[in-house]
Amino acid sequence: MTSPVEHAARIRHFLIEKVCHTGGHLGPNLGVVELTLAMHRVFDPHHDILLFDTGHQAYVHKILTGRGDGFDSLRQPGGLSGYPSRAESPCDVVENSHASTALSYADGFAKAFALRGDDRRIVALVGDGALTGGMSWEALNNIAAAPERPVIIMLNDNGRSYAPTVGGLAQHLARLCDATQGNLFADLGLTYLGPVDGHDVAAVEHALRRAEAIRRPVVVHCVTRKGKGYPPAEQDDADCLHAVGVVDPETALPSSPGAATWTSVFGEEITSIGAERDDVVCVTAAMLRPCGLGEFAAAFPDRVFDVGIAEQHAVTSAAGMAFGGLHPVVTIYSTFLSRAFDQVLMDVALHRLPVTFVLDRAGITGPDGASHHGMWDASVLPIVPGLRLAAPRDATRLRDLLREAVDVTDTPTAIRYPKSAAGPDIPSLRRVGHGDVLREDPGSRVLLVAVGPLAAACLAAADELAQHGVPTTVYDPRWIAPLDPALLALARVHDVVLAVEDTTTTGALGTRIAQALTTTATAAEPPPRVAAFALPPGFLSHGPRDQILRAHGLDAAGIAATILKRLTNATGSPLPEERR
Amino acid sequence: MTSPVEHAARIRHFLIEKVCHTGGHLGPNLGVVELTLAMHRVFDPHHDILLFDTGHQAYVHKILTGRGDGFDSLRQPGGLSGYPSRAESPCDVVENSHASTALSYADGFAKAFALRGDDRRIVALVGDGALTGGMSWEALNNIAAAPERPVIIMLNDNGRSYAPTVGGLAQHLARLCDATQGNLFADLGLTYLGPVDGHDVAAVEHALRRAEAIRRPVVVHCVTRKGKGYPPAEQDDADCLHAVGVVDPETALPSSPGAATWTSVFGEEITSIGAERDDVVCVTAAMLRPCGLGEFAAAFPDRVFDVGIAEQHAVTSAAGMAFGGLHPVVTIYSTFLSRAFDQVLMDVALHRLPVTFVLDRAGITGPDGASHHGMWDASVLPIVPGLRLAAPRDATRLRDLLREAVDVTDTPTAIRYPKSAAGPDIPSLRRVGHGDVLREDPGSRVLLVAVGPLAAACLAAADELAQHGVPTTVYDPRWIAPLDPALLALARVHDVVLAVEDTTTTGALGTRIAQALTTTATAAEPPPRVAAFALPPGFLSHGPRDQILRAHGLDAAGIAATILKRLTNATGSPLPEERR
Repeated sequence: MTSPVEHAARIRHFLIEKVCHTGGHLGPNLGVVELTLAMHRVFDPHHDILLFDTGHQAYVHKILTGRGDGFDSLRQPGGLSGYPSRAESPCDVVENSHASTALSYADGFAKAFALRGDDRRIVALVGDGALTGGMSWEALNNIAAAPERPVIIMLNDNGRSYAPTVGGLAQHLARLCDATQGNLFADLGLTYLGPVDGHDVAAVEHALRRAEAIRRPVVVHCVTRKGKGYPPAEQDDADCLHAVGVVDPETALPSSPGAATWTSVFGEEITSIGAERDDVVCVTAAMLRPCGLGEFAAAFPDRVFDVGIAEQHAVTSAAGMAFGGLHPVVTIYSTFLSRAFDQVLMDVALHRLPVTFVLDRAGITGPDGASHHGMWDASVLPIVPGLRLAAPRDATRLRDLLREAVDVTDTPTAIRYPKSAAGPDIPSLRRVGHGDVLREDPGSRVLLVAVGPLAAACLAAADELAQHGVPTTVYDPRWIAPLDPALLALARVHDVVLAVEDTTTTGALGTRIAQALTTTATAAEPPPRVAAFALPPGFLSHGPRDQILRAHGLDAAGIAATILKRLTNATGSPLPEERR
Repeated sequence: MTSPVEHAARIRHFLIEKVCHTGGHLGPNLGVVELTLAMHRVFDPHHDILLFDTGHQAYVHKILTGRGDGFDSLRQPGGLSGYPSRAESPCDVVENSHASTALSYADGFAKAFALRGDDRRIVALVGDGALTGGMSWEALNNIAAAPERPVIIMLNDNGRSYAPTVGGLAQHLARLCDATQGNLFADLGLTYLGPVDGHDVAAVEHALRRAEAIRRPVVVHCVTRKGKGYPPAEQDDADCLHAVGVVDPETALPSSPGAATWTSVFGEEITSIGAERDDVVCVTAAMLRPCGLGEFAAAFPDRVFDVGIAEQHAVTSAAGMAFGGLHPVVTIYSTFLSRAFDQVLMDVALHRLPVTFVLDRAGITGPDGASHHGMWDASVLPIVPGLRLAAPRDATRLRDLLREAVDVTDTPTAIRYPKSAAGPDIPSLRRVGHGDVLREDPGSRVLLVAVGPLAAACLAAADELAQHGVPTTVYDPRWIAPLDPALLALARVHDVVLAVEDTTTTGALGTRIAQALTTTATAAEPPPRVAAFALPPGFLSHGPRDQILRAHGLDAAGIAATILKRLTNATGSPLPEERR
């Protein structure tokens, strides 16, 4: 019989080999090998409720529930998800992988089980980083107040989110390990067990059995090391190899050098701006390097603020800084901005404060899947009064738009770009309104509104359309909200308008153009046929960005085919006499 | 010279007299008379930064900064705002009045002042209720970690939000007053002073001077009584007269009895449903009675959960309950749902969980102003995949739609209604798709899509249009998201379509209809002229609901005039030959 120690060693070896081959969340899972083994030794994953905050630390749980074979296809199209997935296993519950949610789910389960007389155990594995998020506090406050509803909180204290965990809480957790003073969890009314060596399976198992026996809300404080047992991860100061691409298992270095990404272009330009303007500061919610702020932070350490996994505070503290005379640049993944919609609306926009939001990972992100695609910002932000939203088509435009954004003094601005290489620059023929005409065929009746990084595909589609004898105009609006009257004027002189965008269709730019044109149309001048051509209104699975875009027609062939189809009238003739 | 005690008595008398006459937030302001007096004795409101969380406890601050005369017009159109207002006074900073934000602003100010070498003091008056919100935790975590950046936190501990404050924190604050054990604030690294009698001006003043001298982050724990000094408020178990309408100052009873409100109809119906189904539970974020849950809570005390001012946790704990086999009904003000957009999207909708959101105070709310109008939900929620959104036109439809919503088992649902009387029932001529045809004139070329409570105005507008010889169809879609194909089919056989809605125009129903129709249009069949007729895309001030709607054309006259204008072509003839 394999001992737990041997079992852990074998799992760790498996993780290093597999994840270096496919890419994935390596560091976090190396840190929770023993915690997960102990969890599975004490609780029944088919019966009890095992919650992971965030889901990227569930790889060991996947292995222990019979999914080891799937790791060759981890995060590949059709392959094993990088997060819990109910389609994969009845032992998985929560598929979303935004941080700081597990304790709220746990409280909900506990309330349901108490009412229904269900005695299944509820166990939540939560990182110290996730505790810096306000939701965790809201949940702790509720869980603590109901001693009759047992919840077992396994605190995975590795001292890090990506980077070391920030704030008074992290300092308190460190002091708890020295047993020198008060205990915040006990203050709230929770039973506290620990600290426990989180790499000692027997010790963790013992603590969990005690926690289970107590039958009230308990925090089991487990101290772990992110990247444990893999020297390149343990020694990585940045983030303990939090998430890797395909790397060499010996060195953890990428197999091939990367091209310049949108993120790296932003990182360079914001550093240049920082050198010119000492009122420009940067804010991040525990994503300093992933958001490209490494260089800025090195150059201006006093002017970068990591607030923890705390998007709400990131936005409203930026509002405070803007009130105080600074120009904050809040760098945040598009999908996580949803956490702070109210703060953008009420704390920044209501006061017309000059805060710039830089939305990385906007649009399809790739292997992270449904909870990480940045598909919502471009539909939600146009609702915010006064906010100006930009989408650069290339690196030069990103630099330009960033500078335009930080020059705005009387309203918030936002810039969105995806997780990918920035691609070659695309020159403008001429400026019309706030945007650039990229192509203009004589006699064009078709307008492609090319939003951000989809400009290249739109231009290639125009080439295809030309081969079918369809002359086309391609226009990059650059600023996609509010609606530019020049864009509307351009749309009015075309018969068919397609706005091509890397966001969910509902509320996309094409929707707003359609609304504006049908509102101002008259009987004598009916509106043109406008469509938002964007991502379908649903959640999308993981897979390579290019492949997902292609699957939804957001490549040159798909865009051209859509235009040709729309030009075909009901009788099937491919190029009908269009009404003007 | 007036003593502080006499000054406090005079202010309290003034507040009771004035606020009973106009309506407003009485209980909270009676509780902070001495705190605000002490704050103004120690700090300079023209120089230092005084923040109020929430802004409804700033009445005394208004009086002390020369705005006493304005209280006769408090919350009236063009009159004194019920919240801080930069247009009123340079001593006001934050106009938004969503809770739990002040500490984040304070942290932002502190960061800006540290960088700019500004030594102005930053003082935040924060209720214990506001501390149950996760943003406060995120901010405390950041403030505590920077001892070099002084912030003075005046904790106004009255043990209540509306109702008594819930959770482990409230119990801890009570224990702090007994000085029996650990201190959560000290655990985090904050200096703690207190508890102080918050109705003793000299004691509070002394504590504030100590806090100021320490020059690091400090919590001054002040214990107060909500409604202090006004027996009807002190003795009001529900919420200490948190917010009143026009009342008799002797008794605090309303001057005139109210009609049945949307809220009270909901409260009755959910209680009936609760009696039939024991899986239906209700969740509120510290708004139990204001959301109409009083009767349900009395009947089913085990099945109602007040989670504190914690909208994120309200939603995700509901997701957990739905996972656990219950059907949770989350009752929440429309404007506060913005706090939990990510949770609705990722925690509920991604898992297709049957959670019903009941959005009270949707649309124009009235005297609370810009941060309380529920103008955003109907634009944001249609983005959420699978979510079904309803808007009842009358009390009967509210009861029907609520029952339809809680019968849905595979996706989230939401129902929105305003803060007002429900008005008389409006019968249906016939059901088409999910909606009701309310009027159908022979030869109608105009379609009014009447959303929710604006149905009555649409019908009255149709009467006016009939007098101008314009036959009209009026249709109530009942479910406004996702788009009903039957509604689109109806729209296609009309020339002019106006969707009349009590939400912000961007993303309103009319926008989605326009998008759908222009997408499927062909050269042979151009799209009809569709418009979203809703609230302007900006923040709106306070004033009576009817008056604000009228000002934006959302009454019978405004709707009829808009249709007539749209039927008039460029040559000015009032009823042109329409193209079909």
